[in-house]
Amino acid sequence: MTFDVIKPIRVFLSEDKQLFVALKNIFGYYPGNIFLYKLAFRHKSQAIELNNGSRMSNERLEYLGDAILSAVVADHLFKMFPYKDEGFLTEMRSRIVSRAQLNKLSQKMGIDTLINANTENNNVYRSMKGDAFEALIGAIYLDKGYNFTRRIIIEKIIKQHFDLQELENNDTNYKSRIIEWSQREKRPVEFVIVNEVGHGYNKQYVVDVLVDKISLGKGRDYSIKGAEQDAAMKALLLIDAETGLK
Amino acid sequence: MTFDVIKPIRVFLSEDKQLFVALKNIFGYYPGNIFLYKLAFRHKSQAIELNNGSRMSNERLEYLGDAILSAVVADHLFKMFPYKDEGFLTEMRSRIVSRAQLNKLSQKMGIDTLINANTENNNVYRSMKGDAFEALIGAIYLDKGYNFTRRIIIEKIIKQHFDLQELENNDTNYKSRIIEWSQREKRPVEFVIVNEVGHGYNKQYVVDVLVDKISLGKGRDYSIKGAEQDAAMKALLLIDAETGLK
Repeated sequence: MTFDVIKPIRVFLSEDKQLFVALKNIFGYYPGNIFLYKLAFRHKSQAIELNNGSRMSNERLEYLGDAILSAVVADHLFKMFPYKDEGFLTEMRSRIVSRAQLNKLSQKMGIDTLINANTENNNVYRSMKGDAFEALIGAIYLDKGYNFTRRIIIEKIIKQHFDLQELENNDTNYKSRIIEWSQREKRPVEFVIVNEVGHGYNKQYVVDVLVDKISLGKGRDYSIKGAEQDAAMKALLLIDAETGLK
Repeated sequence: MTFDVIKPIRVFLSEDKQLFVALKNIFGYYPGNIFLYKLAFRHKSQAIELNNGSRMSNERLEYLGDAILSAVVADHLFKMFPYKDEGFLTEMRSRIVSRAQLNKLSQKMGIDTLINANTENNNVYRSMKGDAFEALIGAIYLDKGYNFTRRIIIEKIIKQHFDLQELENNDTNYKSRIIEWSQREKRPVEFVIVNEVGHGYNKQYVVDVLVDKISLGKGRDYSIKGAEQDAAMKALLLIDAETGLK
């Protein structure tokens, strides 16, 4: 009996058969340690409380996956663009691993349907999708190691879902876009920090974007820059919807 | 003739003998592709201009090494602190890979002496040390792969130069420290963005920290938060020197 035969039998007998099959369909391999993957999909609203008081959800895996994803993307871009400087590489990477991209990707790949959350009406919120995506990378890394994870990220994610050429020409700096729009339309735009939530390493900023003194969206992030981007993105959605501007 | 014997002979015959030996002394192995390591030590003041107009220095390797170092440290902390949350892990990582730490480490390990720079009086500036350190990690990664690099970072860097327990108790958030001091001493402190240098992905912020309306230090970074930290650190040095406060 070969390895390839044993795996499907184990999968067929497992109570996590559905998850095994879903992951095989998405990435083309059967997970080894299925518990890691189950944890990757466990939103904090479904955290398990351990005896020592700590809570287990996908947040730690998300932290790990974020770092691994960044490293692999850095490596890939380094090799794909041998004559581009580090500023270019940094910007390209931030476009690939941006929150908005990861949320979209999570949905496109069907990862979001596997999320285990306990929210009102079982809603899966936008940011939960990207979080689960990153946590899944963390799970793959712990299960299969760096080189395997690298191959999955490059072959199954970057090559299939990103056009690096297009990304290079694409301006995803929402704040610049809204400022350009405001200058073109002669409508004053302001970014105002309206709140700081939490403290220490959990501190987040809340930024409000005002057009003609009217709030068009609030953003929140660990950095002011990130909160501004988030707010600008929301405002642009409203502006785009209202004016058909693209 | 074994592998272990061939290597020293090749080293002995190489014109880069000194670098081979220095690296063997620091990390315990002989580099494979010595050109990667030479590039890692090449500061941009000694960049080589290629026919296509692009310039080769250690900046791209620094970008890569930074990402690999972050991933390895994330992995190591994830496993060392199984019950700590992602906020804790993020903060611990930022303490290990902070600019100040990497500059110090570079000096402690003798990496800074290998830097090839063309500066006034051949000065090796502080930040060049940390940059070369990160670039070196990038070179090791390209030369030897992830798992080897991971072992070097954990065994030769983290375990030998960091006390995780001490790091956990150490408060390196300079901005918080100066704010606490200002409240204790009832001396008002302000952080003011005084300049923005460059544009696009090269944009940096310059932040001035004022105590009693007098500037105690300017900081510069790609993020406002980073520039504030940098400025706060400089101000604290002055305050510490003046008051003996620790």
